[in-house]
Amino acid sequence: MSLTIAHLGPPGTYAEQAAALYVNWLTHTTESEAILYPCPSIAQSLQAVAAGKTELAVVPVENSIEGSVTMTMDTLWQLDSLQIHSALVLPIAHTLISCANSLDQIKAVYSHPQALAQCQGWLGAFLPNVQVIPINSTTEALQKLEQDLTIAAIASSRAAQLYNLPILARNINDYPENCTRFWVVSQAQAEVVHQLPRQNPTHTSIAFSVPANVPGALLKPLQIFAHLGINLSRIESRPTKRSLGEYLFFIDIESDVSTPQMETALAELNAYTEVLKIFGSYSVLSVNNPQ
Amino acid sequence: MSLTIAHLGPPGTYAEQAAALYVNWLTHTTESEAILYPCPSIAQSLQAVAAGKTELAVVPVENSIEGSVTMTMDTLWQLDSLQIHSALVLPIAHTLISCANSLDQIKAVYSHPQALAQCQGWLGAFLPNVQVIPINSTTEALQKLEQDLTIAAIASSRAAQLYNLPILARNINDYPENCTRFWVVSQAQAEVVHQLPRQNPTHTSIAFSVPANVPGALLKPLQIFAHLGINLSRIESRPTKRSLGEYLFFIDIESDVSTPQMETALAELNAYTEVLKIFGSYSVLSVNNPQ
Repeated sequence: MSLTIAHLGPPGTYAEQAAALYVNWLTHTTESEAILYPCPSIAQSLQAVAAGKTELAVVPVENSIEGSVTMTMDTLWQLDSLQIHSALVLPIAHTLISCANSLDQIKAVYSHPQALAQCQGWLGAFLPNVQVIPINSTTEALQKLEQDLTIAAIASSRAAQLYNLPILARNINDYPENCTRFWVVSQAQAEVVHQLPRQNPTHTSIAFSVPANVPGALLKPLQIFAHLGINLSRIESRPTKRSLGEYLFFIDIESDVSTPQMETALAELNAYTEVLKIFGSYSVLSVNNPQ
Repeated sequence: MSLTIAHLGPPGTYAEQAAALYVNWLTHTTESEAILYPCPSIAQSLQAVAAGKTELAVVPVENSIEGSVTMTMDTLWQLDSLQIHSALVLPIAHTLISCANSLDQIKAVYSHPQALAQCQGWLGAFLPNVQVIPINSTTEALQKLEQDLTIAAIASSRAAQLYNLPILARNINDYPENCTRFWVVSQAQAEVVHQLPRQNPTHTSIAFSVPANVPGALLKPLQIFAHLGINLSRIESRPTKRSLGEYLFFIDIESDVSTPQMETALAELNAYTEVLKIFGSYSVLSVNNPQ
């Protein structure tokens, strides 16, 4: 089996690292081959799957320090018929990459907004006067470093190796216990997906909107889960972008979608939601991080 | 009565506009005077109240397009004994401010990350090749515009007026129905707060953490509200920053804290949460936007 996997690029991002770990897990489990397909944004990674350009996308869902990746949630909601196939967790260790000889020379630091936020304490302490410039990915600025000795980028040590660039400081994230959860996403009905190996699903993710201007509209959905004793591990409200106070709810459930309780819950939920999207059930893969 | 009110500065931000609206409402209701106290970040606005430097802070909570302002939630959780006194909603209309003669001259656009995100469609269509640079507030870059004709800032038309700067484009937000909800925050036990006028409270906001590594730990808190028929209007999960999958939950409740149902709910909740913070009850003020 041959697969194409979309991820946030250019090569060297944490999303690429997560995609590579998934491919590694896949090739140890089946005789599969995979080609990585870097995209300029997380939204475009998911759009690539929806448009059939790739079979899978590996996208970040949430970081243990900075929380949800809202672009992933908003895009999953907008696109139809995508399904979460697996989850995996990647430990995050940021490094400062630059061709400068010392920190004094650096005038600007580039990285993805989540990486910058995860290193804000370190930046405040060691580079208090530099300009901090958010870009689309941790690796987008790496090609500029050789021409400009006054700039630096925050990315993984793997990225430094890949681009053959020097590391000025290691482990610069403010919290050492930093990791990011990724989802492996496919089209819901894609044939190739049935051929992929899976572990027993332990989680289900759904999202729904409730009728507008109905007081108590979230009460009933939550009651359904509470009465059936189904635990929700994460709940996020995202704006509908129509009117303040109107939300979509993204819920991670600690259960496989095919248990009798879940079947009852989802059938009942249908009656009390405006739009209900079931992104499927999946397990968190045990992947080895080759760091 | 004389009050000092902290807000995200420099002058001209939407937070300052919200603070000015609150002052306007206050002076029409009581004989109060207020001095505005601009702070370099939202966190520092809340810290100013916690440290007793100001009586109140006006901070953004959520935008109808981009969602929650996570810095407000994270700082409210970290600081002790702050209380929400009122809420107000401000319509947001972004303008592009620049001393350039035309859009072609512009090479970089500065603004707060939320404002940039709210105009990303417009920027992609009309300024596709400029550098987009997030800064601490919508007004931080305004003083640089006169010296540099190649840069622009996204801020309110009020900010352009205040700094006497030209507007190159109006109403550039991607969604016309754009508004931001602000909270007026005080110390919980501050004397001055009892003297401030209030409307009948309609909402209560709380946050709690649940015991780590207990499956189903969120089930019980949600069951308490569901059984008592109390509606939650917004639920947000924020990472505890200890370990992936451990969350704090921020909940907005459609009820005053002093109803018998709420008293029962909060007493029961105490038994099933690790840390429970009650940020108080408040109403959404009807303020007139002088636009």
